[in-house]
Parts: sequence; C-alpha cells; structure tokens
Amino acid sequence: MTRLRHIGFLLFDDLTQLDFTGPLQVLNRIPGATVHLVARQQGPVRTDCGPFILADTDFANCPQLDLICVPGGWGIDQAMEDDATLDFLRRQAAGAQYVTSVCTGAFILGAAGLLDGVKATTHWRYHSALPRFGAIPVQARVVRDGSVFTGGGVTAGIDFALTIVREVFGEGLAQAIQLGLEYDPHPPVDCGSPTKASPAILDAVDSQFAPRWDAFLRVVDRLTG
Amino acid sequence: MTRLRHIGFLLFDDLTQLDFTGPLQVLNRIPGATVHLVARQQGPVRTDCGPFILADTDFANCPQLDLICVPGGWGIDQAMEDDATLDFLRRQAAGAQYVTSVCTGAFILGAAGLLDGVKATTHWRYHSALPRFGAIPVQARVVRDGSVFTGGGVTAGIDFALTIVREVFGEGLAQAIQLGLEYDPHPPVDCGSPTKASPAILDAVDSQFAPRWDAFLRVVDRLTG
Repeated sequence: MTRLRHIGFLLFDDLTQLDFTGPLQVLNRIPGATVHLVARQQGPVRTDCGPFILADTDFANCPQLDLICVPGGWGIDQAMEDDATLDFLRRQAAGAQYVTSVCTGAFILGAAGLLDGVKATTHWRYHSALPRFGAIPVQARVVRDGSVFTGGGVTAGIDFALTIVREVFGEGLAQAIQLGLEYDPHPPVDCGSPTKASPAILDAVDSQFAPRWDAFLRVVDRLTG
Repeated sequence: MTRLRHIGFLLFDDLTQLDFTGPLQVLNRIPGATVHLVARQQGPVRTDCGPFILADTDFANCPQLDLICVPGGWGIDQAMEDDATLDFLRRQAAGAQYVTSVCTGAFILGAAGLLDGVKATTHWRYHSALPRFGAIPVQARVVRDGSVFTGGGVTAGIDFALTIVREVFGEGLAQAIQLGLEYDPHPPVDCGSPTKASPAILDAVDSQFAPRWDAFLRVVDRLTG
C-alpha cells in the first residue's frame, strides 16, 4: 500500500478551495501515504473562500512526489506565468508516477508543457481552451491518459480522486473510502452540467465567468501566441 | 439576497475537513453573505488531513450568526464536553435563523441540547446514537426540521448546503451555484452507503470505526447518564 508514498497538492493564491480539499479528503485515506501542501512559500494561501489554508512546505523543501495534483481557480492566471511554479511542476513531473489536475488546474499543467498530446478535461466553461496547450479535449468528468489524470470542475475532484484510488489500488480500497465518506450523492437540484441547465441559468453563470474568461485568454495568448 | 448575512462554521481540533469545506464552497457563493470560521482560538486548527486550516475568529469576537454549521469528526468527543463550545452554540442558536450540522457534528448540537425532539440525521455509522440526545433519527442525506438542518456523513455536506440554498433563496440560486461547481456527481464505484456495500467492505470500514465508536459512547454515557 505504499505505491503512493508522497502525494502533493500545489497551492497558489486565489485557488478554488474545494478543488483540492475534495481530493485531499479521499487521497489522505490511502494507507501509508503522506500528503504535502506545497506553495511558493510556507504559510497562508488565499482561496476563493478566504485566506484560511496553510501550505506546509515550499518548492525547495518538497520531497519528490509520487503523485502531484494541481487544483484550479481564478489564480491560475498568475500561476501560469510564474516561472518558479512551472519549474517546480516540470521537475516534479519528471520523477512522479502520476501528474494530475482538477478543474482549471489543467491549464497550469498546460503552461508547464505537460499536456502536449495528452487527453484531458477541465471545468466545462474552460474546456474549449485545452487545445491551446496541445491537449486533446475529452468531455468527461475524469480522464486518464497514461500517467496523467485530469478532473472536471470543482466537485469533480472527488470522483477524480476515487478514480485514482481504484486504478492504482483496486476497487476494494475505493469502495471502503467511499463508504467512510458516505459518498452517495443526491443533489437536491439537477443542474450540474451545461447540458442540464436552462438557458436562463446558463446565461447567468456564463456572465459571471465572462470577465475572468477574457483575462484568462489574454494570458493564454501571451503564452502560446 | 441578504437573508443570510453572517454564516459561521464551528471549527475544533480533529474535525473532518471536508465536512466543512464542502458546504463552505457552496454557502460562500450566496450573494451578500460573509463566512466566519470560528474556534475557541483564532489560528490553526488540526483536521483529519493535517493542521492546515486557520480559524479567523474566536467565540468572543464572532458576530451573531444567521446560520451556524457544525461539522463532525473524531474531535466531537472533546467538543461535546467543552463548556465554552456548548455555551457558544447555545448563545448563537438563540439568535440564529438556522442551526445546522454535517456528519457527526449533530452530536455537538445534541450535547448543547439543541436536538431535543428534533428530526435529524448524521453519519450512517453513528445514526443509532441520535436518540440519546432526544433527536428523532431520519434515514436521509439531508433532514430539515423547522430551523434545524442536518446532513449525513462528510460528502453529504454538499447536498446539505445546496438544500439550504434552495429552501432559503429558491431553486434558481441553487442551480446556478451547482452549475458553477460542476456538481454532476458520477462516483466511479457505487458503495456510498451501507446498503450498497458488500459484507466484506462493511466489515472493513466498521472495524476502523469500532474503537472510535466505543470512546464516543463513553462520552455519551457521561453526558446523558
């Protein structure tokens, strides 16, 4: 059970906290695994819900990870252009067994050159930008392409992490973790993907994303232009 | 949209982090709401995944909350016997519109006398103990009884929070938040409740809980004699 001894999450300011706290809850239950919360600097990281997360290690002191997971959030715009972050990712990816992302974290992997020719997914609103980094977009909640696992938006991180546990350790451990976390979802509304949303709801959510999307595309243009 | 101006999560050592980070992600998206992470003392709180959460206020400095949410975890054993915690909860509950819990957080509400005669749910493994605090156990992922909402184990907190949003603000806001969080769950295994688990998996998970359950029952015995 020690095939994933060191599991690390990349933290950066303005990440979406559930992108990483969901998979953290699942992967932390792998017997023998140690989880590392790694950022440019140890200490508080600002999330979309407030500055309430503490990174426990920095890039220089993080051990070689067996699995690295990159969450998403508005802060990807800065992280995608941060050389220290991209260097850290490339260095870790060279030695890791699994390189993974949740939500728009895929674009930080992309900016580091780690999705070229790789089948991948991301948050539905950002899906169309995957080819800008050479990724092959797949409409799925979780996508595996060799050693690269990517998850869809935010809550997809829970399905993503259980998929990793199942593929690496087998059905039994995935089931036991799922039962412990009582993960038998029953959303009280049924609007979790754009195909299920009314035009009015889709417009409302889309208009929240629009200014962020434009800023993101300017970053993508600079990186790939 | 300001009917829930102040939303607070009670934090305590050895809580299960997704019990609160799941609903936090949902409730933080209510327009006009301010979320408070409140503990005995400001600063780091130890969770089952490490000491990586920072409480932003203490009991004395927390404003009157419109909604208070109590997560669960192994640390309930201590919290249920902590007078400062129970006094804080009773004081807040007297002025709050909604008193809520996720997972075994229900038992901290119970220890504070807030579930007497109230229909409630909790983590499946702890469900049978609800009547010890006068609660009326209901087998459901989310239960509402008047101003009291309770959720089942860990991941139920996401369904719980969307249920609150729907009941307080209507279907539209719940749908928009769900779509933004891409909450269209597709667990890769189907073992999220004891009725779905094989005897072998149920035994394995049950044996992990057994020593904790015994310690918990000793606390319950002291409190309810």
